[in-house]
Amino acid sequence: MLYIVGLGLGDERDITLRGLDCVRKCDKVYIEAYTSLLSFGLASNGLSKLEELYGREVVVADREMVEEKADQMLKEALESDVGFLVVGDPFGATTHSDIVVRARQMGVKVKVIHNASVMNAIGACGLQLYRYGETVSIPFFTETWRPDSFYEKIKNSRQLGLHTLCLLDIRVKEPTIESLCRGKKVYEPPRFMTINTAIDQLLEVEAARGESVYSEDTLCVGIARLGSDSQKIVAGTMKDLREIDFGDPLHCLVIAGETHDMEGQMLDFYRISK
Amino acid sequence: MLYIVGLGLGDERDITLRGLDCVRKCDKVYIEAYTSLLSFGLASNGLSKLEELYGREVVVADREMVEEKADQMLKEALESDVGFLVVGDPFGATTHSDIVVRARQMGVKVKVIHNASVMNAIGACGLQLYRYGETVSIPFFTETWRPDSFYEKIKNSRQLGLHTLCLLDIRVKEPTIESLCRGKKVYEPPRFMTINTAIDQLLEVEAARGESVYSEDTLCVGIARLGSDSQKIVAGTMKDLREIDFGDPLHCLVIAGETHDMEGQMLDFYRISK
Repeated sequence: MLYIVGLGLGDERDITLRGLDCVRKCDKVYIEAYTSLLSFGLASNGLSKLEELYGREVVVADREMVEEKADQMLKEALESDVGFLVVGDPFGATTHSDIVVRARQMGVKVKVIHNASVMNAIGACGLQLYRYGETVSIPFFTETWRPDSFYEKIKNSRQLGLHTLCLLDIRVKEPTIESLCRGKKVYEPPRFMTINTAIDQLLEVEAARGESVYSEDTLCVGIARLGSDSQKIVAGTMKDLREIDFGDPLHCLVIAGETHDMEGQMLDFYRISK
Repeated sequence: MLYIVGLGLGDERDITLRGLDCVRKCDKVYIEAYTSLLSFGLASNGLSKLEELYGREVVVADREMVEEKADQMLKEALESDVGFLVVGDPFGATTHSDIVVRARQMGVKVKVIHNASVMNAIGACGLQLYRYGETVSIPFFTETWRPDSFYEKIKNSRQLGLHTLCLLDIRVKEPTIESLCRGKKVYEPPRFMTINTAIDQLLEVEAARGESVYSEDTLCVGIARLGSDSQKIVAGTMKDLREIDFGDPLHCLVIAGETHDMEGQMLDFYRISK
Protein backbone atom coordinates (compact mmCIF):
# COMPACT_ATOMS: atom_id res chain seq x y z
CA MET A 1 0.00 0.00 0.00
CA LEU A 2 1.18 3.52 -0.84
CA TYR A 3 -0.04 6.16 1.60
CA ILE A 4 0.19 9.65 0.12
CA VAL A 5 -0.09 11.91 3.14
CA GLY A 6 -0.71 15.65 2.93
CA LEU A 7 1.27 17.59 5.53
CA GLY A 8 -0.61 20.87 5.32
CA LEU A 9 1.04 24.25 5.12
CA GLY A 10 2.61 25.42 8.32
CA ASP A 11 4.87 23.05 10.21
CA GLU A 12 5.20 19.44 11.33
CA ARG A 13 2.16 19.68 13.62
CA ASP A 14 -0.16 20.32 10.67
CA ILE A 15 -0.29 16.61 9.88
CA THR A 16 -3.66 15.04 10.73
CA LEU A 17 -4.06 12.31 13.34
CA ARG A 18 -5.05 9.96 10.53
CA GLY A 19 -1.92 10.95 8.60
CA LEU A 20 0.23 10.34 11.65
CA ASP A 21 -1.39 6.92 12.19
CA CYS A 22 -0.40 5.98 8.62
CA VAL A 23 3.16 7.27 8.86
CA ARG A 24 3.78 5.39 12.08
CA LYS A 25 2.69 2.07 10.64
CA CYS A 26 4.61 2.39 7.36
CA ASP A 27 7.72 0.32 6.74
CA LYS A 28 9.42 3.14 4.88
CA VAL A 29 8.67 6.86 4.70
CA TYR A 30 9.65 9.30 1.95
CA ILE A 31 9.13 13.05 1.99
CA GLU A 32 8.98 15.08 -1.16
CA ALA A 33 11.62 17.78 -0.98
CA TYR A 34 10.58 19.71 -4.06
CA THR A 35 8.45 22.23 -2.22
CA SER A 36 8.91 21.10 1.40
CA LEU A 37 12.48 22.29 1.32
CA LEU A 38 11.22 25.83 1.40
CA SER A 39 8.07 25.66 3.46
CA PHE A 40 9.22 23.29 6.19
CA GLY A 41 12.83 24.44 6.31
CA LEU A 42 14.17 20.93 5.69
CA ALA A 43 17.43 22.51 4.71
CA SER A 44 18.13 23.21 8.38
CA ASN A 45 16.79 21.05 11.20
CA GLY A 46 13.28 20.44 9.90
CA LEU A 47 13.88 16.81 9.02
CA SER A 48 14.97 15.77 12.50
CA LYS A 49 11.88 17.46 13.94
CA LEU A 50 9.73 15.36 11.62
CA GLU A 51 11.62 12.17 12.46
CA GLU A 52 11.22 12.82 16.15
CA LEU A 53 7.49 13.37 15.79
CA TYR A 54 6.99 10.29 13.61
CA GLY A 55 9.37 8.07 15.56
CA ARG A 56 11.01 6.84 12.38
CA GLU A 57 13.53 7.65 9.69
CA VAL A 58 12.35 9.84 6.81
CA VAL A 59 14.03 9.65 3.39
CA VAL A 60 14.11 12.90 1.44
CA ALA A 61 12.97 12.27 -2.12
CA ASP A 62 14.30 15.08 -4.24
CA ARG A 63 12.74 16.28 -7.43
CA GLU A 64 14.71 13.93 -9.66
CA MET A 65 13.73 10.96 -7.61
CA VAL A 66 10.03 11.86 -7.64
CA GLU A 67 9.94 12.58 -11.35
CA GLU A 68 12.36 9.98 -12.66
CA LYS A 69 12.80 7.25 -10.09
CA ALA A 70 9.38 6.90 -8.48
CA ASP A 71 9.23 3.30 -9.67
CA GLN A 72 11.56 2.19 -6.88
CA MET A 73 9.19 3.62 -4.27
CA LEU A 74 6.22 2.04 -6.03
CA LYS A 75 7.91 -1.39 -6.17
CA GLU A 76 8.48 -1.21 -2.42
CA ALA A 77 4.81 -0.29 -1.99
CA LEU A 78 3.81 -3.48 -3.81
CA GLU A 79 5.17 -5.56 -0.95
CA SER A 80 5.07 -3.29 2.10
CA ASP A 81 3.49 -0.13 3.48
CA VAL A 82 5.21 2.96 2.12
CA GLY A 83 4.44 6.54 3.10
CA PHE A 84 4.98 9.43 0.70
CA LEU A 85 4.66 12.78 2.46
CA VAL A 86 3.87 15.91 0.50
CA VAL A 87 3.42 19.51 1.55
CA GLY A 88 -0.18 20.72 1.30
CA ASP A 89 -2.66 18.23 -0.14
CA PRO A 90 -1.71 15.20 -2.27
CA PHE A 91 -3.60 16.53 -5.29
CA GLY A 92 -2.08 19.99 -5.22
CA ALA A 93 0.57 19.11 -7.81
CA THR A 94 0.38 17.33 -11.16
CA THR A 95 3.43 15.27 -10.17
CA HIS A 96 1.40 13.52 -7.50
CA SER A 97 -1.44 12.62 -9.85
CA ASP A 98 1.24 11.10 -12.07
CA ILE A 99 2.44 8.93 -9.19
CA VAL A 100 -1.13 7.81 -8.45
CA VAL A 101 -1.62 6.82 -12.08
CA ARG A 102 1.66 4.88 -12.22
CA ALA A 103 0.91 3.19 -8.90
CA ARG A 104 -2.46 1.97 -10.05
CA GLN A 105 -1.05 0.78 -13.36
CA MET A 106 1.48 -1.29 -11.39
CA GLY A 107 -1.25 -2.69 -9.16
CA VAL A 108 -0.16 -0.75 -6.08
CA LYS A 109 -3.02 0.19 -3.77
CA VAL A 110 -3.09 3.89 -2.95
CA LYS A 111 -4.62 5.66 0.02
CA VAL A 112 -4.72 9.44 0.16
CA ILE A 113 -4.78 11.47 3.37
CA HIS A 114 -5.99 14.96 2.61
CA ASN A 115 -4.89 18.21 4.20
CA ALA A 116 -5.05 21.95 3.64
CA SER A 117 -3.28 23.38 0.59
CA VAL A 118 -2.94 26.81 -0.95
CA MET A 119 -5.96 25.97 -3.13
CA ASN A 120 -8.35 26.16 -0.18
CA ALA A 121 -6.40 27.93 2.59
CA ILE A 122 -6.21 30.96 0.30
CA GLY A 123 -9.74 31.63 1.58
CA ALA A 124 -7.93 33.24 4.54
CA CYS A 125 -7.24 36.31 2.38
CA GLY A 126 -10.91 37.24 2.58
CA LEU A 127 -12.05 36.56 -0.98
CA GLN A 128 -14.62 33.75 -1.19
CA LEU A 129 -13.28 30.51 -2.64
CA TYR A 130 -16.26 29.85 -4.89
CA ARG A 131 -15.66 33.13 -6.72
CA TYR A 132 -12.27 32.25 -8.20
CA GLY A 133 -11.69 31.53 -11.87
CA GLU A 134 -8.88 29.46 -13.35
CA THR A 135 -5.65 29.36 -11.30
CA VAL A 136 -2.54 30.65 -13.08
CA SER A 137 1.18 30.02 -12.64
CA ILE A 138 3.70 32.80 -13.06
CA PRO A 139 7.07 31.42 -14.18
CA PHE A 140 10.40 33.23 -13.76
CA PHE A 141 11.11 35.21 -16.93
CA THR A 142 14.55 34.78 -18.46
CA GLU A 143 16.14 36.88 -21.19
CA THR A 144 14.85 34.56 -23.88
CA TRP A 145 11.80 32.93 -22.27
CA ARG A 146 8.96 35.18 -21.20
CA PRO A 147 5.78 33.08 -21.48
CA ASP A 148 2.59 35.04 -20.87
CA SER A 149 -0.19 32.48 -21.19
CA PHE A 150 -1.43 33.57 -17.75
CA TYR A 151 -2.52 36.88 -19.30
CA GLU A 152 -5.36 35.35 -21.32
CA LYS A 153 -6.57 33.36 -18.32
CA ILE A 154 -6.59 36.41 -16.04
CA LYS A 155 -8.47 38.29 -18.76
CA ASN A 156 -11.16 35.61 -18.96
CA SER A 157 -11.65 35.58 -15.19
CA ARG A 158 -11.73 39.35 -14.85
CA GLN A 159 -14.33 39.64 -17.59
CA LEU A 160 -16.50 37.40 -15.41
CA GLY A 161 -15.74 39.39 -12.25
CA LEU A 162 -13.83 36.46 -10.72
CA HIS A 163 -10.69 36.43 -8.58
CA THR A 164 -7.44 34.88 -9.83
CA LEU A 165 -5.02 32.94 -7.67
CA CYS A 166 -1.47 33.33 -9.02
CA LEU A 167 0.95 30.57 -7.99
CA LEU A 168 4.49 31.87 -8.10
CA ASP A 169 7.44 29.93 -9.49
CA ILE A 170 9.60 27.72 -7.26
CA ARG A 171 12.88 26.45 -8.64
CA VAL A 172 14.51 23.71 -6.62
CA LYS A 173 17.21 21.47 -7.99
CA GLU A 174 17.09 22.88 -11.51
CA PRO A 175 20.10 21.78 -13.55
CA THR A 176 22.02 24.71 -15.06
CA ILE A 177 21.83 24.98 -18.83
CA GLU A 178 25.62 24.81 -19.09
CA SER A 179 25.72 21.56 -17.11
CA LEU A 180 23.02 19.98 -19.28
CA CYS A 181 25.11 20.79 -22.38
CA ARG A 182 28.13 19.11 -20.79
CA GLY A 183 26.10 16.04 -19.83
CA LYS A 184 26.80 16.24 -16.10
CA LYS A 185 24.18 17.89 -13.96
CA VAL A 186 25.12 20.84 -11.78
CA TYR A 187 22.25 22.52 -9.95
CA GLU A 188 21.21 26.13 -9.59
CA PRO A 189 20.62 27.38 -6.03
CA PRO A 190 16.93 27.18 -4.97
CA ARG A 191 14.86 30.20 -5.92
CA PHE A 192 11.30 31.24 -5.17
CA MET A 193 9.42 34.10 -6.75
CA THR A 194 8.47 37.03 -4.53
CA ILE A 195 5.19 38.90 -4.83
CA ASN A 196 7.23 41.91 -5.97
CA THR A 197 8.75 40.04 -8.91
CA ALA A 198 5.38 38.57 -9.84
CA ILE A 199 3.84 42.05 -10.00
CA ASP A 200 6.76 43.34 -12.08
CA GLN A 201 6.24 40.54 -14.57
CA LEU A 202 2.46 40.97 -14.62
CA LEU A 203 2.80 44.68 -15.37
CA GLU A 204 5.46 44.04 -18.01
CA VAL A 205 3.06 41.70 -19.82
CA GLU A 206 0.17 44.16 -19.51
CA ALA A 207 2.41 46.87 -21.04
CA ALA A 208 3.32 44.57 -23.91
CA ARG A 209 -0.18 43.21 -24.58
CA GLY A 210 -2.04 46.44 -23.85
CA GLU A 211 -5.52 44.97 -23.44
CA SER A 212 -6.14 46.70 -20.08
CA VAL A 213 -6.81 43.44 -18.28
CA TYR A 214 -5.35 44.97 -15.12
CA SER A 215 -3.16 47.90 -14.16
CA GLU A 216 -0.95 49.05 -11.31
CA ASP A 217 -4.16 50.32 -9.67
CA THR A 218 -5.80 46.87 -9.63
CA LEU A 219 -6.69 45.56 -6.16
CA CYS A 220 -4.68 42.49 -5.17
CA VAL A 221 -3.89 40.51 -2.05
CA GLY A 222 -0.35 39.36 -1.35
CA ILE A 223 0.05 36.34 0.92
CA ALA A 224 3.32 35.04 2.37
CA ARG A 225 3.77 31.81 4.37
CA LEU A 226 0.07 30.99 4.20
CA GLY A 227 -1.13 28.92 7.16
CA SER A 228 2.02 29.36 9.25
CA ASP A 229 2.36 31.43 12.42
CA SER A 230 4.29 34.10 10.53
CA GLN A 231 1.64 34.39 7.79
CA LYS A 232 1.49 37.87 6.23
CA ILE A 233 -1.50 39.09 4.24
CA VAL A 234 -1.69 42.55 2.69
CA ALA A 235 -4.42 43.94 0.42
CA GLY A 236 -3.65 46.88 -1.86
CA THR A 237 -3.01 47.91 -5.44
CA MET A 238 -0.27 46.26 -7.47
CA LYS A 239 1.68 49.51 -7.17
CA ASP A 240 1.43 49.42 -3.37
CA LEU A 241 2.17 45.72 -2.93
CA ARG A 242 5.20 45.96 -5.20
CA GLU A 243 6.93 48.05 -2.53
CA ILE A 244 6.25 45.70 0.40
CA ASP A 245 8.77 43.25 1.81
CA PHE A 246 6.83 40.07 2.41
CA GLY A 247 9.84 38.21 3.79
CA ASP A 248 10.56 34.50 3.60
CA PRO A 249 8.89 32.09 1.12
CA LEU A 250 6.44 30.90 -0.02
CA HIS A 251 4.54 33.79 -1.60
CA CYS A 252 1.38 33.87 -3.66
CA LEU A 253 -0.82 36.61 -5.09
CA VAL A 254 -4.54 37.03 -5.69
CA ILE A 255 -5.85 39.47 -8.27
CA ALA A 256 -9.27 40.53 -6.97
CA GLY A 257 -12.27 40.51 -9.27
CA GLU A 258 -15.52 42.17 -8.25
CA THR A 259 -15.75 42.08 -4.46
CA HIS A 260 -18.94 41.53 -2.50
CA ASP A 261 -19.77 43.19 0.83
CA MET A 262 -18.41 40.48 3.08
CA GLU A 263 -15.25 40.23 0.98
CA GLY A 264 -14.71 43.96 1.28
CA GLN A 265 -15.07 43.78 5.05
CA MET A 266 -12.58 40.93 5.25
CA LEU A 267 -10.11 42.78 3.01
CA ASP A 268 -10.38 45.85 5.26
CA PHE A 269 -8.43 43.95 7.92
CA TYR A 270 -5.56 43.51 5.51
CA ARG A 271 -5.51 46.82 3.70
CA ILE A 272 -2.27 48.71 3.48
CA SER A 273 -2.00 51.47 6.04
CA LYS A 274 -0.32 54.52 4.57
CA MET B 1 -8.86 34.21 21.60
CA LEU B 2 -11.20 32.44 19.18
CA TYR B 3 -9.68 29.38 17.55
CA ILE B 4 -11.54 28.37 14.41
CA VAL B 5 -10.40 24.82 13.81
CA GLY B 6 -11.02 22.94 10.56
CA LEU B 7 -11.85 19.27 11.14
CA GLY B 8 -11.32 18.01 7.61
CA LEU B 9 -13.68 15.72 5.80
CA GLY B 10 -13.66 12.15 7.04
CA ASP B 11 -13.92 11.52 10.74
CA GLU B 12 -12.65 12.70 14.11
CA ARG B 13 -9.06 11.66 13.34
CA ASP B 14 -8.81 14.16 10.47
CA ILE B 15 -8.11 16.99 12.90
CA THR B 16 -4.49 18.19 12.73
CA LEU B 17 -2.10 17.93 15.67
CA ARG B 18 -2.09 21.73 15.79
CA GLY B 19 -5.88 21.75 15.84
CA LEU B 20 -5.94 19.21 18.65
CA ASP B 21 -3.42 21.26 20.65
CA CYS B 22 -5.78 24.25 20.40
CA VAL B 23 -8.92 22.34 21.31
CA ARG B 24 -7.29 20.84 24.37
CA LYS B 25 -6.22 24.19 25.76
CA CYS B 26 -9.55 25.97 25.12
CA ASP B 27 -11.85 26.82 28.03
CA LYS B 28 -14.93 26.08 25.96
CA VAL B 29 -15.43 24.22 22.69
CA TYR B 30 -18.28 24.60 20.21
CA ILE B 31 -18.85 22.50 17.12
CA GLU B 32 -20.87 23.73 14.20
CA ALA B 33 -23.68 21.27 13.55
CA TYR B 34 -24.90 22.75 10.31
CA THR B 35 -22.90 20.44 8.07
CA SER B 36 -21.14 18.25 10.63
CA LEU B 37 -24.43 16.61 11.53
CA LEU B 38 -24.30 14.79 8.23
CA SER B 39 -20.63 14.22 7.59
CA PHE B 40 -19.55 13.24 11.09
CA GLY B 41 -22.74 11.46 12.09
CA LEU B 42 -23.22 13.62 15.17
CA ALA B 43 -26.82 12.51 15.20
CA SER B 44 -25.72 9.14 16.53
CA ASN B 45 -22.61 8.65 18.67
CA GLY B 46 -20.24 10.98 16.84
CA LEU B 47 -20.20 13.64 19.53
CA SER B 48 -19.04 11.32 22.30
CA LYS B 49 -16.23 10.07 20.04
CA LEU B 50 -15.09 13.67 19.61
CA GLU B 51 -15.34 14.40 23.32
CA GLU B 52 -13.33 11.31 24.15
CA LEU B 53 -10.59 12.29 21.71
CA TYR B 54 -10.45 15.89 22.88
CA GLY B 55 -10.83 15.07 26.57
CA ARG B 56 -13.43 17.78 27.03
CA GLU B 57 -17.08 18.64 26.58
CA VAL B 58 -18.17 19.85 23.15
CA VAL B 59 -21.22 22.09 22.74
CA VAL B 60 -23.16 21.63 19.52
CA ALA B 61 -23.85 25.03 17.96
CA ASP B 62 -26.78 24.61 15.63
CA ARG B 63 -27.44 26.74 12.62
CA GLU B 64 -29.55 29.28 14.49
CA MET B 65 -26.89 29.78 17.08
CA VAL B 66 -24.12 30.26 14.52
CA GLU B 67 -26.12 32.65 12.39
CA GLU B 68 -28.07 34.52 15.04
CA LYS B 69 -26.40 34.08 18.39
CA ALA B 70 -22.70 34.01 17.60
CA ASP B 71 -22.19 37.08 19.79
CA GLN B 72 -22.39 34.96 22.94
CA MET B 73 -19.52 32.80 21.73
CA LEU B 74 -17.54 35.88 20.72
CA LYS B 75 -18.06 37.53 24.11
CA GLU B 76 -16.68 34.44 25.80
CA ALA B 77 -13.72 34.57 23.44
CA LEU B 78 -12.95 38.11 24.61
CA GLU B 79 -12.05 36.80 28.04
CA SER B 80 -11.05 33.18 27.52
CA ASP B 81 -9.90 30.69 24.88
CA VAL B 82 -12.84 29.43 22.85
CA GLY B 83 -12.67 26.78 20.15
CA PHE B 84 -15.12 26.75 17.25
CA LEU B 85 -14.88 23.52 15.26
CA VAL B 86 -16.07 23.37 11.68
CA VAL B 87 -16.14 20.57 9.16
CA GLY B 88 -13.66 21.03 6.30
CA ASP B 89 -11.67 24.28 6.35
CA PRO B 90 -12.73 27.43 8.26
CA PHE B 91 -13.05 29.44 5.05
CA GLY B 92 -15.19 26.93 3.21
CA ALA B 93 -18.44 28.69 4.16
CA THR B 94 -19.49 32.33 4.05
CA THR B 95 -20.93 31.97 7.56
CA HIS B 96 -17.45 31.54 8.96
CA SER B 97 -16.08 34.63 7.25
CA ASP B 98 -18.96 36.47 8.84
CA ILE B 99 -17.90 35.24 12.28
CA VAL B 100 -14.31 36.31 11.63
CA VAL B 101 -15.48 39.79 10.64
CA ARG B 102 -17.70 40.14 13.72
CA ALA B 103 -14.95 38.81 15.99
CA ARG B 104 -12.45 41.35 14.74
CA GLN B 105 -14.95 44.16 15.00
CA MET B 106 -15.48 43.19 18.67
CA GLY B 107 -11.74 43.08 19.26
CA VAL B 108 -11.58 39.30 19.61
CA LYS B 109 -8.33 37.78 18.39
CA VAL B 110 -8.85 35.00 15.88
CA LYS B 111 -6.57 32.12 14.98
CA VAL B 112 -7.46 29.80 12.12
CA ILE B 113 -6.33 26.19 11.85
CA HIS B 114 -6.67 25.02 8.27
CA ASN B 115 -7.66 21.60 7.02
CA ALA B 116 -8.83 19.86 3.87
CA SER B 117 -12.21 20.85 2.44
CA VAL B 118 -14.20 19.89 -0.63
CA MET B 119 -12.59 22.87 -2.41
CA ASN B 120 -9.20 21.17 -2.57
CA ALA B 121 -9.88 17.49 -1.78
CA ILE B 122 -12.02 17.37 -4.92
CA GLY B 123 -8.66 16.98 -6.69
CA ALA B 124 -9.08 13.29 -5.78
CA CYS B 125 -11.58 12.92 -8.65
CA GLY B 126 -8.73 13.21 -11.13
CA LEU B 127 -9.41 16.63 -12.65
CA GLN B 128 -6.65 19.15 -11.91
CA LEU B 129 -7.60 21.80 -9.37
CA TYR B 130 -6.12 24.70 -11.29
CA ARG B 131 -8.44 23.99 -14.24
CA TYR B 132 -11.72 24.72 -12.45
CA GLY B 133 -13.86 27.78 -13.12
CA GLU B 134 -16.33 29.34 -10.72
CA THR B 135 -17.92 26.98 -8.17
CA VAL B 136 -21.71 26.71 -8.31
CA SER B 137 -24.35 25.74 -5.75
CA ILE B 138 -27.39 23.73 -6.77
CA PRO B 139 -30.34 24.47 -4.46
CA PHE B 140 -33.34 22.17 -4.00
CA PHE B 141 -36.07 23.21 -6.43
CA THR B 142 -39.54 23.67 -5.00
CA GLU B 143 -42.79 24.07 -6.89
CA THR B 144 -42.48 27.83 -6.88
CA TRP B 145 -38.74 28.41 -6.52
CA ARG B 146 -36.47 27.04 -9.24
CA PRO B 147 -33.44 29.37 -9.37
CA ASP B 148 -31.05 28.62 -12.24
CA SER B 149 -28.24 31.14 -11.83
CA PHE B 150 -25.78 28.21 -11.88
CA TYR B 151 -26.57 27.73 -15.58
CA GLU B 152 -24.87 30.95 -16.67
CA LYS B 153 -21.80 30.17 -14.56
CA ILE B 154 -21.46 26.66 -15.94
CA LYS B 155 -21.82 28.11 -19.44
CA ASN B 156 -18.99 30.58 -18.84
CA SER B 157 -16.68 27.88 -17.52
CA ARG B 158 -17.47 25.41 -20.28
CA GLN B 159 -16.80 28.03 -22.95
CA LEU B 160 -13.30 28.28 -21.46
CA GLY B 161 -12.89 24.50 -21.28
CA LEU B 162 -12.87 24.56 -17.47
CA HIS B 163 -14.35 22.10 -14.98
CA THR B 164 -17.22 23.08 -12.67
CA LEU B 165 -17.57 21.94 -9.08
CA CYS B 166 -21.26 21.76 -8.13
CA LEU B 167 -21.96 21.94 -4.39
CA LEU B 168 -25.27 20.29 -3.63
CA ASP B 169 -27.85 21.67 -1.23
CA ILE B 170 -27.89 20.70 2.45
CA ARG B 171 -30.93 21.60 4.51
CA VAL B 172 -30.49 21.24 8.23
CA LYS B 173 -32.79 22.87 10.74
CA GLU B 174 -34.85 24.73 8.17
CA PRO B 175 -38.05 26.09 9.68
CA THR B 176 -41.15 24.95 7.80
CA ILE B 177 -43.01 27.68 5.95
CA GLU B 178 -46.20 26.91 7.87
CA SER B 179 -44.41 27.31 11.21
CA LEU B 180 -42.91 30.65 10.16
CA CYS B 181 -46.40 31.90 9.33
CA ARG B 182 -47.61 30.85 12.78
CA GLY B 183 -44.67 32.53 14.49
CA LYS B 184 -43.36 29.41 16.22
CA LYS B 185 -40.55 27.56 14.53
CA VAL B 186 -40.99 23.90 13.65
CA TYR B 187 -38.17 22.34 11.68
CA GLU B 188 -38.13 20.19 8.57
CA PRO B 189 -36.18 16.93 8.78
CA PRO B 190 -32.58 17.29 7.51
CA ARG B 191 -32.19 16.79 3.77
CA PHE B 192 -29.19 16.58 1.50
CA MET B 193 -29.23 16.60 -2.28
CA THR B 194 -28.12 13.45 -4.07
CA ILE B 195 -26.11 13.46 -7.28
CA ASN B 196 -29.18 11.99 -8.99
CA THR B 197 -31.40 14.91 -8.01
CA ALA B 198 -28.71 17.41 -8.98
CA ILE B 199 -28.48 15.89 -12.46
CA ASP B 200 -32.28 15.90 -12.82
CA GLN B 201 -32.36 19.60 -11.97
CA LEU B 202 -29.39 20.40 -14.23
CA LEU B 203 -31.06 18.68 -17.18
CA GLU B 204 -34.40 20.35 -16.44
CA VAL B 205 -32.72 23.76 -16.61
CA GLU B 206 -30.87 22.85 -19.82
CA ALA B 207 -34.20 21.80 -21.37
CA ALA B 208 -35.79 25.09 -20.33
CA ARG B 209 -32.89 27.35 -21.35
CA GLY B 210 -31.87 25.39 -24.43
CA GLU B 211 -28.41 26.90 -24.93
CA SER B 212 -26.69 23.49 -25.18
CA VAL B 213 -24.35 24.25 -22.31
CA TYR B 214 -24.35 20.54 -21.43
CA SER B 215 -26.47 17.49 -22.15
CA GLU B 216 -27.14 14.04 -20.75
CA ASP B 217 -24.01 12.92 -22.64
CA THR B 218 -21.72 15.38 -20.85
CA LEU B 219 -18.88 13.78 -18.89
CA CYS B 220 -19.19 14.29 -15.14
CA VAL B 221 -17.72 12.88 -11.96
CA GLY B 222 -19.94 12.07 -9.00
CA ILE B 223 -18.29 12.01 -5.58
CA ALA B 224 -19.88 10.80 -2.34
CA ARG B 225 -18.36 11.06 1.15
CA LEU B 226 -15.19 12.69 -0.17
CA GLY B 227 -12.16 12.01 2.01
CA SER B 228 -13.79 9.29 4.12
CA ASP B 229 -13.03 5.57 4.03
CA SER B 230 -16.29 4.90 2.20
CA GLN B 231 -15.61 7.52 -0.48
CA LYS B 232 -17.20 6.69 -3.83
CA ILE B 233 -16.10 8.31 -7.10
CA VAL B 234 -17.67 7.47 -10.46
CA ALA B 235 -16.97 9.11 -13.83
CA GLY B 236 -19.55 8.89 -16.59
CA THR B 237 -22.17 10.82 -18.53
CA MET B 238 -24.99 12.60 -16.72
CA LYS B 239 -27.32 9.92 -18.06
CA ASP B 240 -25.16 7.16 -16.57
CA LEU B 241 -24.54 8.81 -13.20
CA ARG B 242 -28.23 9.56 -12.77
CA GLU B 243 -28.87 5.84 -12.39
CA ILE B 244 -26.19 5.18 -9.75
CA ASP B 245 -26.87 4.86 -6.04
CA PHE B 246 -24.10 6.84 -4.36
CA GLY B 247 -25.35 6.05 -0.86
CA ASP B 248 -25.04 8.20 2.24
CA PRO B 249 -24.28 11.96 2.19
CA LEU B 250 -22.54 14.21 1.40
CA HIS B 251 -22.55 14.21 -2.41
CA CYS B 252 -21.02 16.59 -4.91
CA LEU B 253 -20.70 16.65 -8.68
CA VAL B 254 -18.07 17.87 -11.13
CA ILE B 255 -18.98 18.74 -14.71
CA ALA B 256 -15.81 18.07 -16.71
CA GLY B 257 -14.50 20.65 -19.16
CA GLU B 258 -11.79 19.76 -21.65
CA THR B 259 -9.66 17.00 -20.15
CA HIS B 260 -5.91 16.72 -20.52
CA ASP B 261 -3.99 13.44 -20.85
CA MET B 262 -3.24 12.96 -17.18
CA GLU B 263 -6.80 13.84 -16.26
CA GLY B 264 -8.12 11.26 -18.69
CA GLN B 265 -5.86 8.60 -17.20
CA MET B 266 -7.02 9.46 -13.68
CA LEU B 267 -10.68 9.38 -14.75
CA ASP B 268 -10.16 5.95 -16.30
CA PHE B 269 -9.90 4.52 -12.79
CA TYR B 270 -13.35 5.83 -11.97
CA ARG B 271 -15.21 5.23 -15.21
CA ILE B 272 -18.49 3.38 -15.08
CA SER B 273 -18.15 -0.27 -16.00
CA LYS B 274 -21.08 -1.45 -18.06
